[in-house]
Amino acid sequence: MSWDDMTDSACPIARALSVVGDRWTLLIMRELIMGNRRFDEIQAQTGMSSHLLSTRLKRLEADGIIERKLYCERPPRYEYERTAKGKDLDPVILLLRSWGMKHGGFGSKDEPAVRIVHRKSGTVVDADWRMPESGRKFTFDDVDSKVGKVFAKEREKKRAAFRAAKGLSD
Amino acid sequence: MSWDDMTDSACPIARALSVVGDRWTLLIMRELIMGNRRFDEIQAQTGMSSHLLSTRLKRLEADGIIERKLYCERPPRYEYERTAKGKDLDPVILLLRSWGMKHGGFGSKDEPAVRIVHRKSGTVVDADWRMPESGRKFTFDDVDSKVGKVFAKEREKKRAAFRAAKGLSD
Repeated sequence: MSWDDMTDSACPIARALSVVGDRWTLLIMRELIMGNRRFDEIQAQTGMSSHLLSTRLKRLEADGIIERKLYCERPPRYEYERTAKGKDLDPVILLLRSWGMKHGGFGSKDEPAVRIVHRKSGTVVDADWRMPESGRKFTFDDVDSKVGKVFAKEREKKRAAFRAAKGLSD
Repeated sequence: MSWDDMTDSACPIARALSVVGDRWTLLIMRELIMGNRRFDEIQAQTGMSSHLLSTRLKRLEADGIIERKLYCERPPRYEYERTAKGKDLDPVILLLRSWGMKHGGFGSKDEPAVRIVHRKSGTVVDADWRMPESGRKFTFDDVDSKVGKVFAKEREKKRAAFRAAKGLSD
């Protein structure tokens, strides 16, 4: 059975996985959530090859999960954004984060990679956090985020390594 | 960057994906949730090769997500079960299901693949469902499930095809 067959399955989990069941895909979504919307920068942070990233972005666009916006005409340059359908994945990504915070081998004193505060309730979105308002779905649009020092350093290191490999200067 | 590097990332999403960021892995979890706990039966429903399934099960066991239990001594036969750490993925899988129900191309009159009822509240767990009791995490242990006709037929067909390919009779 191939993954294309999964799109015909009666099982919604199989259909969801046929679209987003790929770690790279969810890492791309993480980058877009973090406001990192450009090809090179996404590549730098995920470590994907250009070919793989390009393929995944096209697939996500075809599936209506992200959309491409021109931000520079000459030369043509695009940014990627989550669509409403893409944002509907936010609760999945939030819970993956919670699971990773709990089971990812972090120490109790480790600073969170990103400190996230739910804007309306003012509560810190930690591993055990649950949406306080009923009747409303979680979206990363409703939070304020601050990247912690350790994760910021990791990201800066990746960015520098990527730019050095491409022969770019800052 | 390889996926092994992801386990060292400060980002809990990256760490979670390094363990479960694979569609096969989450499909295996789906089968265990459905009470399908044996190697051949999991293989029949997921369509994985023996080698791939075996590799994934070993990895999940090493990561403490599932455990293996002997159910037959001669010849030795094992069943697989979710550990507490594995059950902590239930909310992620529930929300993937919700997303798939909403965006997986189902018609409004399509019977759900599995009708799930939250035992304590008696509510049907549909695409919009949210845990009614606060302070408690969702787990599939707390629901009653009934496989719908279409999905049951799809599963029976896969099972029959698998058994025929292996030269087994029912």
